[in-house]
Amino acid sequence: MKTEITGRIAALRDLMRGAGINAVIIPQTDPHQSEYLADHWQVRRWLSGFTGSAGALVVTLDNALLWADSRYWLQAAAQLEGTGIGVMEEGKPEVPEITEWLCQNLKKGDTVGVDGMLFSVTATEQMQSALGACGINLRVDFDSIDRIWTDRPALPLEAIFIHDVKYAGEDAASKIAKILADASSQGAEAAFISDLAEIAWTLNIRSRDVESNPVATGYLYLSPAGSTLFTAPEKLTPEVTAELSKAGVAVRPYNEVKAALAELPADRTVLISPAQTSTAVIAILGDRARRGTSPVAMLKGCKNDVQVEGVRHAMERDGVALVKSFMEIGKAMAEGREITELDVAEILTRHRSAQPLYFDQSFDTIAGFGPHGAIVHYSATPETSVTLHPDNLLLVDSGANYLDGTTDITRTITLGKTTDEQRKDFTLVMKGHIALATAIFPAGTRGAQLDALARINLWKEGLSYLHGTGHGVGHFLNVHEGPQSIRLNENPTPLKPGMITSDEPGLYRAGKHGIRCENLVLTVPAMTTEFGDFYRFEVLTLFPFDLRLFDTSIMTDEEIEWVNNYHTTVRERLSPALNGEELAWLEEKTATLTR
Amino acid sequence: MKTEITGRIAALRDLMRGAGINAVIIPQTDPHQSEYLADHWQVRRWLSGFTGSAGALVVTLDNALLWADSRYWLQAAAQLEGTGIGVMEEGKPEVPEITEWLCQNLKKGDTVGVDGMLFSVTATEQMQSALGACGINLRVDFDSIDRIWTDRPALPLEAIFIHDVKYAGEDAASKIAKILADASSQGAEAAFISDLAEIAWTLNIRSRDVESNPVATGYLYLSPAGSTLFTAPEKLTPEVTAELSKAGVAVRPYNEVKAALAELPADRTVLISPAQTSTAVIAILGDRARRGTSPVAMLKGCKNDVQVEGVRHAMERDGVALVKSFMEIGKAMAEGREITELDVAEILTRHRSAQPLYFDQSFDTIAGFGPHGAIVHYSATPETSVTLHPDNLLLVDSGANYLDGTTDITRTITLGKTTDEQRKDFTLVMKGHIALATAIFPAGTRGAQLDALARINLWKEGLSYLHGTGHGVGHFLNVHEGPQSIRLNENPTPLKPGMITSDEPGLYRAGKHGIRCENLVLTVPAMTTEFGDFYRFEVLTLFPFDLRLFDTSIMTDEEIEWVNNYHTTVRERLSPALNGEELAWLEEKTATLTR
Repeated sequence: MKTEITGRIAALRDLMRGAGINAVIIPQTDPHQSEYLADHWQVRRWLSGFTGSAGALVVTLDNALLWADSRYWLQAAAQLEGTGIGVMEEGKPEVPEITEWLCQNLKKGDTVGVDGMLFSVTATEQMQSALGACGINLRVDFDSIDRIWTDRPALPLEAIFIHDVKYAGEDAASKIAKILADASSQGAEAAFISDLAEIAWTLNIRSRDVESNPVATGYLYLSPAGSTLFTAPEKLTPEVTAELSKAGVAVRPYNEVKAALAELPADRTVLISPAQTSTAVIAILGDRARRGTSPVAMLKGCKNDVQVEGVRHAMERDGVALVKSFMEIGKAMAEGREITELDVAEILTRHRSAQPLYFDQSFDTIAGFGPHGAIVHYSATPETSVTLHPDNLLLVDSGANYLDGTTDITRTITLGKTTDEQRKDFTLVMKGHIALATAIFPAGTRGAQLDALARINLWKEGLSYLHGTGHGVGHFLNVHEGPQSIRLNENPTPLKPGMITSDEPGLYRAGKHGIRCENLVLTVPAMTTEFGDFYRFEVLTLFPFDLRLFDTSIMTDEEIEWVNNYHTTVRERLSPALNGEELAWLEEKTATLTR
Repeated sequence: MKTEITGRIAALRDLMRGAGINAVIIPQTDPHQSEYLADHWQVRRWLSGFTGSAGALVVTLDNALLWADSRYWLQAAAQLEGTGIGVMEEGKPEVPEITEWLCQNLKKGDTVGVDGMLFSVTATEQMQSALGACGINLRVDFDSIDRIWTDRPALPLEAIFIHDVKYAGEDAASKIAKILADASSQGAEAAFISDLAEIAWTLNIRSRDVESNPVATGYLYLSPAGSTLFTAPEKLTPEVTAELSKAGVAVRPYNEVKAALAELPADRTVLISPAQTSTAVIAILGDRARRGTSPVAMLKGCKNDVQVEGVRHAMERDGVALVKSFMEIGKAMAEGREITELDVAEILTRHRSAQPLYFDQSFDTIAGFGPHGAIVHYSATPETSVTLHPDNLLLVDSGANYLDGTTDITRTITLGKTTDEQRKDFTLVMKGHIALATAIFPAGTRGAQLDALARINLWKEGLSYLHGTGHGVGHFLNVHEGPQSIRLNENPTPLKPGMITSDEPGLYRAGKHGIRCENLVLTVPAMTTEFGDFYRFEVLTLFPFDLRLFDTSIMTDEEIEWVNNYHTTVRERLSPALNGEELAWLEEKTATLTR
């Protein structure tokens, strides 16, 4: 493998020399700015051998470096050893950003090449400005990787199917009308969408092109005179084609998108979102492009009543699957059977996939035992998977896509003995979880304003976690979506009714244990007073928190009452679908928490 | 007066016609982008008769409109009646911004004129882009108001004096060296400063040019080869000139600043802050200007140990003055003597000005009784001032500048009877005040992240307040300063050790009462753990909250304990300077709060 990588980098350098290019940047994304990629777009993985889900590769004629964030410092070092590719530990103060490094290591007049399909307009303009300031040219037409990656996987050709309006709650024609009305208010007649989740939502289509993300590879051009989905014709059945046609959407091959945009009349105005759209696409549109905000993000983010009702049902089935799963894990432990982190993932998938309307997991299960729980993005592999023991905590973050909704839940449980530190850590995290879950806030409030509610109890003890407290969640779609978030950093999007967001504070003690407590919550109206409209959260997720981990001595009466009320709801909602043994198990797990 | 205003507007229109200008914008600021203005710069007040502290006037050839924010809707309507100037109620959704209105009401090719000294680079560029989009030209050379305002007050000529380094804690030479080092790191050899508070801080000079703001009118050019203060020579004594000279600062007349900038060598690089510097100044600098962040804001914001110790002493003297003042108010009420809102302001000023190192009030006292307390920026006038009665609340927001520090405190007290609603409102505000005062947070935390801690208890009851929770406070300088704030809206500046910020949540029931509880707090290190550095607040202000207004049934034990601990500190710190009667009064006011 090491030799193969060296050979690939050498071949890339030949291409660079042929094109008069001094450095290339290979990002970890696709032409749709996706977070999760089909194999066809795993260029950085193929070139470097590094399998992490993030991190760009920079190759010059005499150097090659991978920028890895802290999750991947160790993995990158291990996977890149002997390849001649160095690791840049992103986030360390002494590690420069890529453009800074290029400014320091290239000469004035040198040229950096990138594939303009893989960089958004916003990203390209930032690079251009940073490199331009030190006299380095940027070319966005370096897209000849096919010439050296001769066995590159084809574009995915999974079948597209219709997400029934009985689950989606609104048909494609109605959604397209809203999008075009918004585009018109932004001064554009038409709209061009490259984000795969936005396309899936707009057209009520789904596929299996990307692992865990039920999206179809494509581009969507919307206009009052008729719309076009650019996707591989092999992905379509006559039924899907007919359904799209009802919404005024014709289909053309994926690779005709550039030509089709080039053919648009010179006076056509097309809305594009610069952060989501490839610079190569904007270049084709030229003066026809109107930069603005994607109308889809907010429409998709605010779920309609049918979607919300669907998610409530999906949460019940997911809760039942979790009861069966954690019962099975508990039993195995009680009987002294060997059970590993990988087994936990298998058990969850087995019980979830037996539920009606199950489609797939919504992301790879994170099952981290003891110190592994402290690795925030830990994913067990056959090499790392350990056997569970009674003397530490197990953190399980998992979720599924059902046709009627997407789930994402984290529970941290003890497998037997607990320490004072573990109980205090867990309870501080839960105090934050509850503070956010019970917040009431005025219309217009942004997630960054509420984030500290989940953190302040930890902060007061000199503790903290660095990940976000909440991300948006799709409806039978990507488990990470915008436009809202609840994070340390500012995001101008307010929390609006219908938005589904995670509530997941955590605490990670390196080498010891990790704790995260996550439910999904729905923003709903709370009240209207002389001071305006106020919103609150409805908790959607249905599964108990581990009673053995609460330290009630540091909880308020209200916090204890919240746990008991929540557990009562969990019991009432899940009971109808449980057998006697399961019900007894759940009753024990939702017993009244007392001081 | 009405006729005078009509005549002034007519004269302005003659000027406009002569200059070929279709509309002018007269902002409420000066060439230093000040919040408080010397009389010379009260152009908008002179032209319109409107005396509010904010709000721009727009005059076209056939229309005149004043954009007033919600504080001033009623006042503007009253003061502008019969002048032909209409009021635009800023903040109402149907009211357009000025540039929007100009786009709607002027013709393509028309010209808007402004005085380029009164608009920052940032503001000018925003106007230019908004007006340019609808084909309207912007000219920034319309500065001929002197031709019609023939009795315009002269520029202020108050004496400049040195703020002794025994209070300032650092001499001007040392500050200048730090500023130039920062400028150098931003790629500039020199720096140009127009903000009056930044100049006062840098040079350790003060004056009385602007009411309540102890600043001197001037510009400051700093460079390693020598610096220049542009100010009226009449303001200087030989002592001040000598002191400036020790720091390498020469003095030139205020009105020579443009010529001096024009004379700078072509290769000189000068740091300017585009949000603080007039567009007319940048125009003179041309390519010599390096846009960046003012190095002074952060240096000035983080007080040194001498300043902090000074403020602690100033707070003790201010607390003593407050004890004397509130005792006098209480006595008058008890004896049935008539006492008005204006009397309250007079009493406070009298007792404060008797304290050592007193210089001036730091802003006009707000003393609002009953419904007046609900008007956030209420300032009693002979026309509005009412007599206090025992049946409602009195809100008093006041502060002083002492040579060793600036104070700003709000207390809300009952004058006799209280209602359940008043006590609940007060206690909810105090719960927010305490939550913020007791916060501990990691280095890097921004005010907007903490703001909700002060609001969440109100929000849960459907209540809110729309002003900020905290503003920065200068040291013997402006009572409002940056760079930090604790507000609903995002401000990227983190809270750093040495910053002094207000903690002032409130609640305003129109027509009933207003409540605000304000202390100043100092950011100090709290602890360092494996999770990094954490900060907390030290409370600086020393005066009790009204015990009769607490509803302990909705307080936690920790909140009650905070009140008692704070009151113990107040008593201990103020007692040494009180006489027997005052001490007895303070002991009653700081009695233990119990359930």
